[in-house]
Amino acid sequence: MTPTHSPRLLDRAQCLEADQGDPLRELAARFALPSGVIYLDGNSLGALPRHVPERVERAVREQWGTGLIRSWNDAGWIDAPRRAGASIARLIGARADEVIVADSTSINLYKLLSAALALRPDRRVILTESGNFPTDLYIAQGLLEQIDRGHRLVRTGRDRILKALDDQVAVLMLTQVDYRTGERFDLAEITAAAHRVGALVIWDLAHSAGAFQVDLGLAQADFAVGCGYKYLNGGPGAPAFAFVARDHHDGLRQPLTGWLGHAAPFAFEPDYQPASGVGRLLCGTPPVLSLTALEAALEVFDDAEAFGGLAALEAKAACLTDLFIERFEACCGESGLRLITPRDASKRGNQISLAADDPAQGYALMQALIDAGVIGDFRAPDILRFGFAPLYLSRVDVWDAVETLARLIETRAWDDPRWQRRKAVT
Amino acid sequence: MTPTHSPRLLDRAQCLEADQGDPLRELAARFALPSGVIYLDGNSLGALPRHVPERVERAVREQWGTGLIRSWNDAGWIDAPRRAGASIARLIGARADEVIVADSTSINLYKLLSAALALRPDRRVILTESGNFPTDLYIAQGLLEQIDRGHRLVRTGRDRILKALDDQVAVLMLTQVDYRTGERFDLAEITAAAHRVGALVIWDLAHSAGAFQVDLGLAQADFAVGCGYKYLNGGPGAPAFAFVARDHHDGLRQPLTGWLGHAAPFAFEPDYQPASGVGRLLCGTPPVLSLTALEAALEVFDDAEAFGGLAALEAKAACLTDLFIERFEACCGESGLRLITPRDASKRGNQISLAADDPAQGYALMQALIDAGVIGDFRAPDILRFGFAPLYLSRVDVWDAVETLARLIETRAWDDPRWQRRKAVT
Repeated sequence: MTPTHSPRLLDRAQCLEADQGDPLRELAARFALPSGVIYLDGNSLGALPRHVPERVERAVREQWGTGLIRSWNDAGWIDAPRRAGASIARLIGARADEVIVADSTSINLYKLLSAALALRPDRRVILTESGNFPTDLYIAQGLLEQIDRGHRLVRTGRDRILKALDDQVAVLMLTQVDYRTGERFDLAEITAAAHRVGALVIWDLAHSAGAFQVDLGLAQADFAVGCGYKYLNGGPGAPAFAFVARDHHDGLRQPLTGWLGHAAPFAFEPDYQPASGVGRLLCGTPPVLSLTALEAALEVFDDAEAFGGLAALEAKAACLTDLFIERFEACCGESGLRLITPRDASKRGNQISLAADDPAQGYALMQALIDAGVIGDFRAPDILRFGFAPLYLSRVDVWDAVETLARLIETRAWDDPRWQRRKAVT
Repeated sequence: MTPTHSPRLLDRAQCLEADQGDPLRELAARFALPSGVIYLDGNSLGALPRHVPERVERAVREQWGTGLIRSWNDAGWIDAPRRAGASIARLIGARADEVIVADSTSINLYKLLSAALALRPDRRVILTESGNFPTDLYIAQGLLEQIDRGHRLVRTGRDRILKALDDQVAVLMLTQVDYRTGERFDLAEITAAAHRVGALVIWDLAHSAGAFQVDLGLAQADFAVGCGYKYLNGGPGAPAFAFVARDHHDGLRQPLTGWLGHAAPFAFEPDYQPASGVGRLLCGTPPVLSLTALEAALEVFDDAEAFGGLAALEAKAACLTDLFIERFEACCGESGLRLITPRDASKRGNQISLAADDPAQGYALMQALIDAGVIGDFRAPDILRFGFAPLYLSRVDVWDAVETLARLIETRAWDDPRWQRRKAVT
């Protein structure tokens, strides 16, 4: 089976030429990447947009240092969660008032899972995929243990989700892109199937938002959460987002009822009254410096509009990942590595994963790659994972990355004891 | 009744002289405060330590921009919650492994309240003070509504807490310093009383940590939460901290079971297994830029050790607040303002609050004060609140602040329509 999208590039010069003809290359100039590095880990931590340091510095020196407490109003800190939410809404097919930035993905998932169960009081099943990202599973476990009302977390294989949907399912909780294999669920199809049995759906868009086109509105999605620090480039541990469809706003009840989710936080009333809409998902005071970086980073996506927006970014990512597969198969024949990501670009995220026949070799190989300036990551037990952020990667980057990979395989880099001991990176 | 601690300062020159003889004045040089401002709101948002911008900039440009994903290990991001927790532990009489930095005060309270109820399964009462900070009340309400097992939140007056303690109380939840009046609970006395009836205690140290001496170990305290952005100067929305006494580590179960609180986050196991000790209070990925600012800001307290540490800071705050009371009573006779903070410095936090007979006048007066460069805050319905951070305030600041207050009262600043309409500041 051949790659699905892209014209074949036969040598490095053709890659260079194609890059030069690519209007999206202008966006790469907005990122500060170190020289000598090919960064294939933007799905773990997005690269630094060049304008962000100055914005953070201003938040520190001017807004905090000089504005002090006045900056909550004067610099607009208090509205930042809603502003950043509205920016993200545009990237995921949501309305501005359906998304808010708050806390972490895990905590937002806890809020929405609790809220969704409350909307289906007669049902007792949270359905999910066995291989969902662990924090999603852990959060569901923690919630169910706490409420202790006979709910069950049912985990099933990826291909059995549709069959497992029935009228006992209160909530279907899925991550759209599998963090290991890169497989992508059809969000609209699965949402519709869940709705047919009366179940709600919570999508984890950690590896989707900013990576490719997502249309929550078209899919009539209920709830979603996602991450600020991967393809949105919001910086390490950037606050996360939560989406709630307008239809669910009025009935929404979530348990982390902190003061900033109150209808009138500064009235200091003794009883909780929820703010309207997604505002009630706020809890405590947001980490303003981290939020400033995220809000600034999102501006890159405004610029991307002029170049075709997420449709163009998705096509570029398909081209990059196609090229990686093609080159991997051409150059890394006897590698002990197997492609585990779908070959059809519409069925994968912006990611390629290779499983290692020998996990220890695979681990060492990734350390050697990182040392050689090709930064991907290793996911236990046996996966070399590469993310392809179309905002800042080029075809030549991909070409060179696979050349390096091939060279390290050729020289059996895993035999070098330097690569066998390093601590795993997130 | 006269102030309790300090020699009387009869004029501005005596204040200047006393300031010059005060070894703590060297610490003030570590803060970047704008000229023309007397900042009496460090209890809402602490001032910016001068070395923090550079540290944040390094985290952005070098650690994020150049180090990228590698910085989780190479720059030590992954251990920052424990490192910052250990720094805070020294300020509150805790052991290094009893404190961790995570999420917000509200979310940490939710975790610990849930954990504490699980440790007292046969009891059904959370006891608190009617006037506790609203987010604490809201969080308890949200938790009890969610678990729905017949618990009650019992709220009582500040002076009736000890009487309300009985063998139905699972948890006593109190904020040590009242955010409106500045009254301070005797932490050790109340903890002992709660323990006598078998109740656990959760202390909210939002206005205590970094403000005066707190000794959780001596008091044999169970749990505490607190804020990174007030007297700890961690920056707007800095992450918060949580304390769990070692005795409770093994049995601790909290519901926000995110991956970073797992015993082996990077093993990606399908089932949650808690990390040891306070590590299990971690949930999602921490906001590294905000956490960097907090961690750096805490270094100021290391320097303060050479000048007598928190004991000296507490004495200085007593001196500043005594002086404020004395000058207020000397200069602001017919003000329509009443002192509602205890005159005994050992019974208050580093705070003075004045209640306005006419709330609208009081509100306008605070806006006029802020405009005149004396920054306090207004707390609904009728309180002018002033915080006295001993790290960066001087006696002359206090003298001048009250002079300004007196002038604005004298000229009936509240009649100026400019001050009657501005939005309330946090």
